[in-house]
Amino acid sequence: MSESSKTVKSDIEIAQEAVLTPIASIAEKLGLNESEWEPYGRYKAKVSAHLLEKLDADGKIILVTSINPTPAGEGKSTVTVGLGQALNRIGKKTVIALREPSLGPTMGLKGGAAGGGYSQVVPMEDINLHFTGDFHAITTAHNALAAFIDNHIHQGNSLNIDPRRIVWKRVLDLNDRALRHVIIGLGGKTNGVPREDGFDITVASEIMAILCLSLSLEDLKARLSRMLIAYTYDGEPVFVQDLQVEGALTLLLKEAIHPNLVQTLENTPAFVHGGPFANIAHGCNSILATKLGAKLGDYLVTEAGFGADLGAEKFLNITARAGKFTPNAVVIVATIRALKMHGGLTKDELKDENLDALAAGMENLACHIDTIRAFGLPYVIALNHFITDTDREVALVNEWCAENNHPMALSKVWEDGGAGGEDLARMVTKVIEETENHYHPLYALDDSIEEKIQTIVRKVYGGAKVEFSSKANRQLASFKKNGWDKLPVCMAKTQYSLSDNPKLLGRPHDFTMHVRELKISLGAGFIVALTGSVLTMPGLPKHPAALDMNVTADGKVTGLF
Amino acid sequence: MSESSKTVKSDIEIAQEAVLTPIASIAEKLGLNESEWEPYGRYKAKVSAHLLEKLDADGKIILVTSINPTPAGEGKSTVTVGLGQALNRIGKKTVIALREPSLGPTMGLKGGAAGGGYSQVVPMEDINLHFTGDFHAITTAHNALAAFIDNHIHQGNSLNIDPRRIVWKRVLDLNDRALRHVIIGLGGKTNGVPREDGFDITVASEIMAILCLSLSLEDLKARLSRMLIAYTYDGEPVFVQDLQVEGALTLLLKEAIHPNLVQTLENTPAFVHGGPFANIAHGCNSILATKLGAKLGDYLVTEAGFGADLGAEKFLNITARAGKFTPNAVVIVATIRALKMHGGLTKDELKDENLDALAAGMENLACHIDTIRAFGLPYVIALNHFITDTDREVALVNEWCAENNHPMALSKVWEDGGAGGEDLARMVTKVIEETENHYHPLYALDDSIEEKIQTIVRKVYGGAKVEFSSKANRQLASFKKNGWDKLPVCMAKTQYSLSDNPKLLGRPHDFTMHVRELKISLGAGFIVALTGSVLTMPGLPKHPAALDMNVTADGKVTGLF
Repeated sequence: MSESSKTVKSDIEIAQEAVLTPIASIAEKLGLNESEWEPYGRYKAKVSAHLLEKLDADGKIILVTSINPTPAGEGKSTVTVGLGQALNRIGKKTVIALREPSLGPTMGLKGGAAGGGYSQVVPMEDINLHFTGDFHAITTAHNALAAFIDNHIHQGNSLNIDPRRIVWKRVLDLNDRALRHVIIGLGGKTNGVPREDGFDITVASEIMAILCLSLSLEDLKARLSRMLIAYTYDGEPVFVQDLQVEGALTLLLKEAIHPNLVQTLENTPAFVHGGPFANIAHGCNSILATKLGAKLGDYLVTEAGFGADLGAEKFLNITARAGKFTPNAVVIVATIRALKMHGGLTKDELKDENLDALAAGMENLACHIDTIRAFGLPYVIALNHFITDTDREVALVNEWCAENNHPMALSKVWEDGGAGGEDLARMVTKVIEETENHYHPLYALDDSIEEKIQTIVRKVYGGAKVEFSSKANRQLASFKKNGWDKLPVCMAKTQYSLSDNPKLLGRPHDFTMHVRELKISLGAGFIVALTGSVLTMPGLPKHPAALDMNVTADGKVTGLF
Repeated sequence: MSESSKTVKSDIEIAQEAVLTPIASIAEKLGLNESEWEPYGRYKAKVSAHLLEKLDADGKIILVTSINPTPAGEGKSTVTVGLGQALNRIGKKTVIALREPSLGPTMGLKGGAAGGGYSQVVPMEDINLHFTGDFHAITTAHNALAAFIDNHIHQGNSLNIDPRRIVWKRVLDLNDRALRHVIIGLGGKTNGVPREDGFDITVASEIMAILCLSLSLEDLKARLSRMLIAYTYDGEPVFVQDLQVEGALTLLLKEAIHPNLVQTLENTPAFVHGGPFANIAHGCNSILATKLGAKLGDYLVTEAGFGADLGAEKFLNITARAGKFTPNAVVIVATIRALKMHGGLTKDELKDENLDALAAGMENLACHIDTIRAFGLPYVIALNHFITDTDREVALVNEWCAENNHPMALSKVWEDGGAGGEDLARMVTKVIEETENHYHPLYALDDSIEEKIQTIVRKVYGGAKVEFSSKANRQLASFKKNGWDKLPVCMAKTQYSLSDNPKLLGRPHDFTMHVRELKISLGAGFIVALTGSVLTMPGLPKHPAALDMNVTADGKVTGLF
């Protein structure tokens, strides 16, 4: 069945027509007893993070990643949801783990998202709005810390904090460019100490990254206490533990740490938990959700932000290492439309068959396949089908995969749900069963920061060399001096290109990466390497999605699509 | 039984030892079916606001108010909870309605509160932290509107908004003095338009007041669309509806509007919903919670912020009028300690018997009794017992009430729970049954703004006259011109004195009230008259309560007391 054979419905229409199973039944099917989960409404729940210590079994962890994203769309979340549904259909007990969406983009550009078509997680309206309040808890903890810092300075500044060197900004879960650069503490002596400050979006908060990398409430508290917040007038670092507020911050996050359980349109259990930025952070859902899902199912399907050069690289070098788990396979999502853009077409040229552009664009996919192989992992190509794909285009991809011995399957999960992903599901279980897994991170933590970055640039991006700005060089020296150099590196790079130039699609060669600046996230436990400019507080467009949103007197929602 | 005869436990210890009934049983006892409520964990629920239209019965509404608060403490929330428990004990089906606490003060000064001793609402830790996320939804809606305003200006400002005359600030549910006065939009052309701005605490948001005064989701949307956000360069008012974002804001509040159901330590059903500032707003829980509670019980006990001069006056002139209901009785809480402070003692002098000071302090109580009589309502004095009260002091209050024919009862609900409030409960039901109710607001909406304020000052505060600053006079003229003068008045005045001088305790006479400034809240539907300075963003103390808060690895909370 293709999209054209039924009335095309919007995602929200499909989601609103869904027949949901009470979350109590989903929890029961997972074998949870009442003390192990709490309802949030009839169709959402929080599952106790403490359960992780109690359960023995470990299911297989499948990571869904993609080629470099293009405006044509790849449908990575849709394939993640569809694959989970399909695995259940072929008799494999499977759980999905996804990130929570951020309200900022929902109100701004895109109106909300949690998969698409017949492969969505529901209740989509709740998931796209306040959900179970995790992001609000993070916003509150983040801003409470900022208030404690400013209050400390106001009340005498016994820690000798330099107000010009506070590295802890404030956050809101909104797109609000007017808050990027602000001056606070104005109005005279009773109103704090004037200083420059700024707001990021909540998903860029280090606390978001910490929540997603923590293995327990205790680990969360230890990570919070290690966060760097400022430097003294003498240049010494100041940490959260110096303010003694890690207990209060942990208290504010004591519910947020528990993974949220929902379901897909086909009642497959889905954890939707945490959502760190995929550029200045590691961009995948919480380790707790992933590990818990793997313990409750035989298979756990999760995804990481952007293409394999960013999301998968960080999942495999940072997340799996922090989570002490071994992934079992990687699904690389590609679409013919996106491959043709990597082959040189513009978005307007995509509707016509173009085998040359498609063949040229395969290079981008090839690079990501090489990356996954470099990590030693089994993989499958998921060709996510669109109605405009021609038979000859599909055949070309098939032949290319066959010639190069790449396991591949067509996905029609957008239009057909799990039924459209059964081939993919069978191929994934086959490679897990039949291929040896030699997973290993690409670099050792003892490598120098420069070596770690060079490894990623050469082995993942296919670049030639790395140049550090003078600022970055100064920071390298400072991090080394402070003993902060034994952490993994979190690359902040454009998602559109393998290089640091968003216009270079396909598979560029011999390029140089420019590391402009470094940033230390001691609580999250990584060093951020910034290449190019990274916007940590988005703005709203001229016509925000919010203008088309509404809710009727009886609660029916429109405009979240 | 007095406090001394058992080990004195802290509020959080008592709360943590409580045996809670599953919220499903509480809902069932109220006659709710599954479609009418949603669980938020095992011990919290949201009850559908739509239920209001479906239920016919109307129980009696009892308002708990007090004398002017002093540092000695009055225990109004404790009496409210205890009275509800006591009414149930004497066979009257009773529901309680209280405000939600704000995180700012919880982290700052007081560590959290929801009644005290054996008259608390539980789960107290949840109620004092994020609860069901209502405040976070309000914070988000408020700040989303601010972002829409700044984005509108940035994108071309077709409404011609004057950035110097934006009356919509931002909010956070924190105490953060450094955000009172800020400059935003710095950093050049891509980062918005520079302007002065500031943050209030969330409870001071007009959206909080609106949520608490709305009768339905439709009413909420209509009120949101009427909110004044700015003036144009030509001096014309700009409203939310001009930006066309009332649908999105309502969407963000579609869950927050449903009243939250919890229970007391004795399993009495309690709605805890909304919490507007008691100075620049009207200071009581949502009308939806109050009306729903009155429909589900035979009695509904609620409270309003500060003393009867502020909370009760606003409840009876603003809230009951907006909610189209008639209150049935008022309980005025007083303590011997507080009365002695009104009689001239300092806090350190309270432990010793002092009949003269007590006799002098009765004047403050007398004024509030006169207020409630002016509204035509039956009332009962609740003398909230403290361990330091002597028999002769209690006898003095008893005699004074008897001489003046004031119905009175002793309350020992802090130490004994509902059992300590049975006398009060019987007295309250007696006055409701035996006293004629002539309830009427003190002024007509058609009175001029000046007349309304004069009425409150003379009939409630006992003052002689009102003086308006030149700024207030200009605003009076502007409000009249815009047709905004037919709304009730919300007085912003110190809670410590009947006058606008916090040092004048007891019952001052012949004083003049000074109205410094007016503020229009068109969505909430009232005119705020500011007397003296009103802080809408509190600061943190030198040693914030947060420093003593903690949560252990297994989730046990300490430091919320």
